[in-house]
Amino acid sequence: MRQRHKPWADDFLRDNQHIVIPDAKDYKNKWKSLFGNDRPIHVEIGTGKGQFITGMAKQFTDINFIGIEIAKSIIVTAAQKVKESGMENVFLLNEDAQDLREIFGDNEVEAIYLNFSDPWPKNRHEKRRLTFHTFLSQYQQVLDEAGELVLKTDNMGLFEYSLVSFSQFGMRLEEVDLDLHAKQDPANVMTEYEEKFSAKGQPIYRCRAKFK
Amino acid sequence: MRQRHKPWADDFLRDNQHIVIPDAKDYKNKWKSLFGNDRPIHVEIGTGKGQFITGMAKQFTDINFIGIEIAKSIIVTAAQKVKESGMENVFLLNEDAQDLREIFGDNEVEAIYLNFSDPWPKNRHEKRRLTFHTFLSQYQQVLDEAGELVLKTDNMGLFEYSLVSFSQFGMRLEEVDLDLHAKQDPANVMTEYEEKFSAKGQPIYRCRAKFK
Repeated sequence: MRQRHKPWADDFLRDNQHIVIPDAKDYKNKWKSLFGNDRPIHVEIGTGKGQFITGMAKQFTDINFIGIEIAKSIIVTAAQKVKESGMENVFLLNEDAQDLREIFGDNEVEAIYLNFSDPWPKNRHEKRRLTFHTFLSQYQQVLDEAGELVLKTDNMGLFEYSLVSFSQFGMRLEEVDLDLHAKQDPANVMTEYEEKFSAKGQPIYRCRAKFK
Repeated sequence: MRQRHKPWADDFLRDNQHIVIPDAKDYKNKWKSLFGNDRPIHVEIGTGKGQFITGMAKQFTDINFIGIEIAKSIIVTAAQKVKESGMENVFLLNEDAQDLREIFGDNEVEAIYLNFSDPWPKNRHEKRRLTFHTFLSQYQQVLDEAGELVLKTDNMGLFEYSLVSFSQFGMRLEEVDLDLHAKQDPANVMTEYEEKFSAKGQPIYRCRAKFK
């Protein structure tokens, strides 16, 4: 995603620490107390401009959402969306999600969403794909036993790779959609990218998988 | 597949019992001796007009192939193809493949191909899909431990269903292709149906899965 320099971003983040939580690692094992309730926590990795996480927060008010986005210039847009929505069941983290175990304790999370992650198509970059086994291992640790990983992508190669990677890791597929929008699932909340991409008539792939 | 009445079919089958093997159940646990060698046995369920099984037999001469087709009026066409090819590493069976365990002993088979099987799209017909768990259980029994199930279809619903069914059964996905022909795999032997269908530009799905 193209990142514009936003000189006001630092000020905005300083003024909105109730939305974009600083020092996220301090809240490891304590997220429920920060939300102030005992509801399930769902995490999106690579939240971008926040359309998905804000839409989910509005649709599922009994779930707590945390969106992680490394790019400061992008997360401010997401934070503005959250602010405008008035929803209090969503926090954002301006963090690198390379190791979720630094941010979340064991079993602290009930769902992880990977939306349109970088496909890293070259074989030599396999390790960077967010469905490489090293990442799956992290997800398994922070996810509750009944928790699930939800992958959505327009990239065929990443989807094929991920199905095999999940399976080889011993995960169980719960659902596979090879043309999500053809099904017109009203519960599907689109990301900005998904909206643009599917308007071109290209299929969106999705799967849900569990660690048994 | 449309079936024409072929009055000469009985005569043809009687004259070609070295290709279309009668009394298949008698050969349970004895197929290798019928082939006269110890090579791996690969089975296609629903052989149709035989383009796939004949093409495979030509391409993989160190493998023994068995094609099963219930429709007599169709299997004669397959038998003619096998005859014309001159290949001796392929037999056909004019049988109902509802229970492979009647035809093959435990671990007797090293690969099973399901090509463009009837998708049975209605939920109430789920049990008839050849990737329903009762069938998987049969495949597991007749397949060697290292053996694999190879599914090829143009039907998105059947493919989605099958991936989940395999996974829920505890099978491991080895490879998933969501647009097989885009990859131009020279080892892919097309069925008659596949050739016609993919000429329309529609994707062909394939996956390979093992029972661990």
